[in-house]
Amino acid sequence: MGEKLKFIAEPKTVSIVGCPFSGGQHRIGVDKGPIHLVNAGLVEQLKDLGWVVEFDGHHQFEEISAAVDPPTGKLRNPRLVSNVTEAVGRVVAGHASKGSLPLTLGGDHSLAMGTIAGTLSKYPDACVIWIDAHADINTPETTDSGNIHGMPLAFLTSVSGSTSLGGFASSQPIPFSWLDSVHLPPSNLAYIGLRDVDQGEKAIIREHNIAAFSMHEVDRYGIGKVVEMALDRVNPDRSKPIHLSFDVDALDPSVAPSTGTPVRGGLTFREGHYICERLYETGLLVAVDLMEVNPSLKEEADAQQTVAVGCSLVRAALGETLL
Amino acid sequence: MGEKLKFIAEPKTVSIVGCPFSGGQHRIGVDKGPIHLVNAGLVEQLKDLGWVVEFDGHHQFEEISAAVDPPTGKLRNPRLVSNVTEAVGRVVAGHASKGSLPLTLGGDHSLAMGTIAGTLSKYPDACVIWIDAHADINTPETTDSGNIHGMPLAFLTSVSGSTSLGGFASSQPIPFSWLDSVHLPPSNLAYIGLRDVDQGEKAIIREHNIAAFSMHEVDRYGIGKVVEMALDRVNPDRSKPIHLSFDVDALDPSVAPSTGTPVRGGLTFREGHYICERLYETGLLVAVDLMEVNPSLKEEADAQQTVAVGCSLVRAALGETLL
Amino acid sequence: MGEKLKFIAEPKTVSIVGCPFSGGQHRIGVDKGPIHLVNAGLVEQLKDLGWVVEFDGHHQFEEISAAVDPPTGKLRNPRLVSNVTEAVGRVVAGHASKGSLPLTLGGDHSLAMGTIAGTLSKYPDACVIWIDAHADINTPETTDSGNIHGMPLAFLTSVSGSTSLGGFASSQPIPFSWLDSVHLPPSNLAYIGLRDVDQGEKAIIREHNIAAFSMHEVDRYGIGKVVEMALDRVNPDRSKPIHLSFDVDALDPSVAPSTGTPVRGGLTFREGHYICERLYETGLLVAVDLMEVNPSLKEEADAQQTVAVGCSLVRAALGETLL
Ligand SMILES: [Mn+2]
Ligand SMILES: [Mn+2]
Ligand SMILES: [Mn+2]
Ligand SMILES: [Mn+2]
Ligand SMILES: [Mn+2]
Ligand SMILES: [Mn+2]
Repeated sequence: MGEKLKFIAEPKTVSIVGCPFSGGQHRIGVDKGPIHLVNAGLVEQLKDLGWVVEFDGHHQFEEISAAVDPPTGKLRNPRLVSNVTEAVGRVVAGHASKGSLPLTLGGDHSLAMGTIAGTLSKYPDACVIWIDAHADINTPETTDSGNIHGMPLAFLTSVSGSTSLGGFASSQPIPFSWLDSVHLPPSNLAYIGLRDVDQGEKAIIREHNIAAFSMHEVDRYGIGKVVEMALDRVNPDRSKPIHLSFDVDALDPSVAPSTGTPVRGGLTFREGHYICERLYETGLLVAVDLMEVNPSLKEEADAQQTVAVGCSLVRAALGETLL
Repeated sequence: MGEKLKFIAEPKTVSIVGCPFSGGQHRIGVDKGPIHLVNAGLVEQLKDLGWVVEFDGHHQFEEISAAVDPPTGKLRNPRLVSNVTEAVGRVVAGHASKGSLPLTLGGDHSLAMGTIAGTLSKYPDACVIWIDAHADINTPETTDSGNIHGMPLAFLTSVSGSTSLGGFASSQPIPFSWLDSVHLPPSNLAYIGLRDVDQGEKAIIREHNIAAFSMHEVDRYGIGKVVEMALDRVNPDRSKPIHLSFDVDALDPSVAPSTGTPVRGGLTFREGHYICERLYETGLLVAVDLMEVNPSLKEEADAQQTVAVGCSLVRAALGETLL
Repeated sequence: MGEKLKFIAEPKTVSIVGCPFSGGQHRIGVDKGPIHLVNAGLVEQLKDLGWVVEFDGHHQFEEISAAVDPPTGKLRNPRLVSNVTEAVGRVVAGHASKGSLPLTLGGDHSLAMGTIAGTLSKYPDACVIWIDAHADINTPETTDSGNIHGMPLAFLTSVSGSTSLGGFASSQPIPFSWLDSVHLPPSNLAYIGLRDVDQGEKAIIREHNIAAFSMHEVDRYGIGKVVEMALDRVNPDRSKPIHLSFDVDALDPSVAPSTGTPVRGGLTFREGHYICERLYETGLLVAVDLMEVNPSLKEEADAQQTVAVGCSLVRAALGETLL
């Protein structure tokens, strides 16, 4: 509780960016995630932790009809996702520039293109800790599904190369061209929790030597050691700002069932919280994403459990401690 | 199996102190815990482990009607809890003085005022390993609920100060005055399993520098390391007598559902047993409490599971090994 | 993925030995295990991992009527089990001699007498990593049940002594006499996952100083460390061939419910996979057994889950990685 956040201004302020958005994937309902998280009392809970909480309603994203947003190559909803993430990026950048901590509630994980771009605009040397069952680093070439929530890190790290979006007619604004000036060096990215990674993604991770800790490493070393190993790779002096992007599907489905792409063998309730607690404890956090809560999936009790765990993870990331 | 217990006389004898008592909290049924534990075959199980087992029925605690036991300050049932724990303390002291190992079955955790007082009468330098989701160290000032099962360690360690019970009319015997001569130094107390600790308790733990290992530390270091860290704090030479006070709510509710104040994110079945096995292995155990089994809560199958786990924990603490 | 298997010829070939056999124990249905595992798509899954897969149907074991196979001492079905395991041993030896990796699907764990004998015929210095809740090292003298699936390691390591089967009339071929020339030195055997070991077995393990890691050690050191400790005992230079014999009941019943003798407090999904992944990673594997999947026990969903976990363990042992 007593730790100061090195990069956040006093009185410490968290700015909630509610993103009811599902355009980066195809399952109905993930856009309801942020609404349920807020309705579960998250604002009050963060105030109880001593934060000034800014929240003035969920963002209304301009809809782009499917008629004018046909797939480009395999990419689905490219213009919609580009526009929305660009808008989110501006909002997050605005909060960061004032010294407050943006907490973005998704919504699907394509939103992280916006949130991380926003963080980098203020903190170009920020590192990203990406907690996920998936690597989300497919390129427009390697993707099978065309769902952009499986690609944000390819766009952010530029591993997809310059010709990725060559299929767009040059007469129109090219989607994601706003990301041309954004670059997350692969050496500033660390994964924890991976267990469902596509072949093409495995090749990218290896080629770019990205710090990647799968459940195998969590079992081998324990979560305590793995978090330090991840930090040693991307933040060896414990001096750089940290952006935490937490996909709830990193947790085991028995812990967080209501999410679009659950995978067995995930993080326990306690391991998920440990990661959040430890990152807060570094004093280096500058932004937090909580993504892929989908209260429409599974039973009502499962949805409530998933929302409750989501709130609890956020509280842990924002300073709630057991002692 | 081959380890000797350094402080226990041969032939090694366990004296079961059955305490069907619920006056330290407000939920019906925790007084049934010891009866179910014994009915599940605990006596025979301990004989099978090579113990001489003393058990001559559960204790009948003199009831004090609510009419003559009104709350004092926030404290509920102060006279009843004082009388009962004083009686338990005498019984435990008697067993300890003969060189047998008292195993106290609760009942609510206020009983530990008696059991630990009894242990200290024979072994003044004994340390206490307190396994619990809760710190049970609220003072009469910091308690919200007034339930004394959340306070035994405040009375035992005297952190509540001398004026705590000033609300009592001096014309009556002052409850808990029998504890005036009992003192557990905070440096002889170590917690494992904490995850629901009140603000006032956190302040006390910090102020008195009490060894406290929450689930955060269990995740960070693993249970194997945490038990050694706890022993290093309170028993660095592995020479002092150990009193183990185990509240079943330390276990995750999926493991021990039938208890009054369950909290998510608890010890696994295996971690709970590991603690018991390891403490037995030190050869230093002098007393064991198993508390807060409440077979009236949750479904019948849950209650049976909780009772079975309780018996299993006791067996592990009394020498059952996997190999 | 890139690791080579040191002892296996290229192109690397796995030879599936389907053993629908239940004669080493008394529960109906364990003979259906291999059929369900194959029907779940195991052959294709292993091809996807880059293996040449040999599988020409499950073995038909000659039935011996109970009339001519009465118990000998406490041993049930001694002639049947002897004949079947001898036949399996020949088949496994044949695959091993060609440089392919035999994958034996059980069926009950008595089959390991055959599989390990087959491995030893090609690799006399092979070590055995035995993953099990049970030690399966009862002798004809120490067994309570007479079920031979609880004894294979007693026969293989010869701890049962030469007079074990003295009850057979000398006019008949003596069951298991084919094992007289087979010897697994106890120093080449390591257990992981033990938690239900009979007193007689504990004595044998101690007397022969067998490397045995129970769930207590898994909790104490973590699974990562325990696997290395096991290898350090039986394969210190990481140079000898490894035979992995995996009894699904090593897993916690919540993970693998459909098995004949489930025991609480077992390996998690992730720990089970970790063991398999790590042993493949050594490059030293020469044979794998997956035993005691019994799809007739528990609900249909439990059976499917157990079969799915079984396939998943095999894939992990044959090179599937998370990254
Ligand atoms: Mn994701
Ligand atoms: Mn994901
Ligand atoms: Mn408690
Ligand atoms: Mn307690
Ligand atoms: Mn077995
Ligand atoms: Mn077994």
